Parts: sequence; structure tokens; C-alpha cells
Amino acid sequence: MSEERGRRPGNPQTKDEILEAAIAAFTTQGYAKTTIRGVARAAAVDPALVMHFYGNKDGLFDAAMRGGGMPVNLLLDVIQGDPATLGERLSSRYLSLWEHPLIGRRMSVVMQAATSSPAAADMLREFMTEVVLKPVTEQIQADHPETRALLAASQMIGLAMIRYILRIEPLASLPMEQVAAAVAPNLQRYLTGTLTLDELPR
Amino acid sequence: MSEERGRRPGNPQTKDEILEAAIAAFTTQGYAKTTIRGVARAAAVDPALVMHFYGNKDGLFDAAMRGGGMPVNLLLDVIQGDPATLGERLSSRYLSLWEHPLIGRRMSVVMQAATSSPAAADMLREFMTEVVLKPVTEQIQADHPETRALLAASQMIGLAMIRYILRIEPLASLPMEQVAAAVAPNLQRYLTGTLTLDELPR
Repeated sequence: MSEERGRRPGNPQTKDEILEAAIAAFTTQGYAKTTIRGVARAAAVDPALVMHFYGNKDGLFDAAMRGGGMPVNLLLDVIQGDPATLGERLSSRYLSLWEHPLIGRRMSVVMQAATSSPAAADMLREFMTEVVLKPVTEQIQADHPETRALLAASQMIGLAMIRYILRIEPLASLPMEQVAAAVAPNLQRYLTGTLTLDELPR
Repeated sequence: MSEERGRRPGNPQTKDEILEAAIAAFTTQGYAKTTIRGVARAAAVDPALVMHFYGNKDGLFDAAMRGGGMPVNLLLDVIQGDPATLGERLSSRYLSLWEHPLIGRRMSVVMQAATSSPAAADMLREFMTEVVLKPVTEQIQADHPETRALLAASQMIGLAMIRYILRIEPLASLPMEQVAAAVAPNLQRYLTGTLTLDELPR
């Protein structure tokens, strides 16, 4: 454990600095290329200290996602208000977050991690269920609120794949407002419209 | 170059066998863990022969995707017919393909590759644009057919992320028919409905 520069290993400030270094590493290098050793070097601590605080790379990724790496509050800000226009508010805010250089990069790292590491997929699933979907589900006054929130999430995730990760034209270059307006009614149908989920054979 | 077992390096059969080994490797090990060397070993040829035919790992991935690794024809089968029910046909068929053990695994490898390798993302973009989206776009009689086809694709890709890759409940366990019915009207709106893309500031 590194004691140089007068830092104590158990110092909460050191723990935060490691987390900041991890968020920066995941964001700039991506999930696959980020290592415990590299994060330790960037935070000027011993790799053993990183493992002491976060266990392994996936533990570090989990902490990075929860600890300010993901802009959940900025998305959840818009769920209050008229339920009839929730689709509009969600699609605009979600696209704004992706358009933000730093936040967009962070979200793209999370998508990359979740498709390439089963452990990261587990974490994103838990994170989405507990942190993102639960508050949205609570706003939904219709039948099957969890399924509705997830269908809306599926549209938003897929939109990010096409527009920001694969960057397929013409959708990648379409002005954000036009994309938001095209998608909003579909989100709204999922959130408050008729889904007929019970009328079909299970 | 391996001449053992009486095979000539330039033999089209050998080239096909390498491709089959590549599809199997990408499917079972994923994009990140597949190597030229491993594919060569599985096909019982020299790695140099794999590189001779396919260049590098990304070239091999591209060939695997085009050469029977992706079930494009099975999806495109349903685009003919009444445009008013195209959303239903596409959502049912797309989900059926994901539910198929082998095909689902192949599609999940492609998603994983596209989020973790920029070269694979380039290939998936080109593949989707040329092979998948073009025939769908040609069926669309409304304004902005390319954007409409892409919006529908965004919904389908996101649905696969939530249901088959992240496997978030309750959407992951919902019967396929219910999911298809819930999603179909949204696809249909993208394909033939009102999008007001021109009424917004560009």
C-alpha cells in the first residue's frame, strides 16, 4: 500500500480520487482496455489499494457507474409533471444527455461494457432496475408499469445504438429536436397508451 | 501454408471451412476472445492462410456476418405484403429469430462486437445500411423512408438489448407474442404513420 505523499490508504479522499481516475479511464479508454493497474497509476496509488476499496475491475466499474459516472438525476429530473407529455420530456432530455460530450462518452462506455462483459451486464441490469426504472415505474398510472417503463427504455437504448454508437445516417445527423419529436409519441404510447398485454396467450 | 491432409490452400472448400470455424468461434467465444490463430486451429489450417483469405480478425468477422452468420433473408422474407401490417410481421419475425438458440447467439455476438470495436461498428453500419435497411426502405411509401426504417431498427435493436442481452424482467420472460404485439404498433407508426419530421427546425 502506498504511503507516499502523506496519504493514508484508508483516506476517503484517496478512495474518491481512485473513483475519479476510474471514471476517467473507463470514459477515455473504454471498458475493455481499462485495468486496475492503469487506474492505480493514474491515481498515484498502489494497485492493491484499488483492489482493497473496489475488489476487481467489475467492482470498480460498478462504483464508477453509481458514483457520478452516470447522469441518472439529470434524466429523472423530468419524470415529474404531466404524465401525458412524459414521452416528450424523456426523449428530449435523454437525447440532450447523449449529445453532451462527456456524458455521452460515459453512457457509450456503459453500453460497450454491458454487451462485452456478463458481469457488467449484471450490473447495468441491477442499476437500471433499481436506480433508473423504479422511479419511472412509480410515475406510471397504467397497467403493467414495469413492462411499460422497460419498453420505453428499449426504444431509448436502441436509439442511442443507431444514432450515437453505430452512427447510421440519416438518423445520426438529424437535428436532435426532430429525433425527439419523432420518438416521443412512441414512448408516450408505451408509458400511458393501450398495450393489450393481457389479451394475448401467455 | 498447410498442405497436410491433401488440401490445397486456394481450395474454395478450405475457405468455406475457415468461415464456418470463424462463425462458430465468434458465436461461442464472442468477438473479443476470437483470434485468427484459434480459428486457424479449429479449421486445421495455418493462420497465414486465414489472413490470406480474410486479412485480419475484422475481415473475418465481416465475412462471418455476411456469409451465413446473420439471418438477413429470414428477416427480409416478411417485408413483402400489406404495408399496413408490416410492423406486426417485422416484430414477430425479429423476435422469433432472437428466440432461436443459434441465430440469437449470432446476433448477440454482432451487437457485442459493434459496441466494443469501432471496426466492427463500421461493418455493422455498412451491413445494416446496404443489406438490411435498403430493402425495408424500398417498401416504405411515406416521406423520409430511410429515417423511418432506422427508427424501426432502433426499436428492434433496443428491444434485443433489454430482453436478450441485459435480460431485464419482466420483459425478458414475457411471452414473445405479447412483446411482439406491444411493439408492433410503434414499428407501424415509424413505417407508415405521421412523423412531422419537416415541421421542426432543422
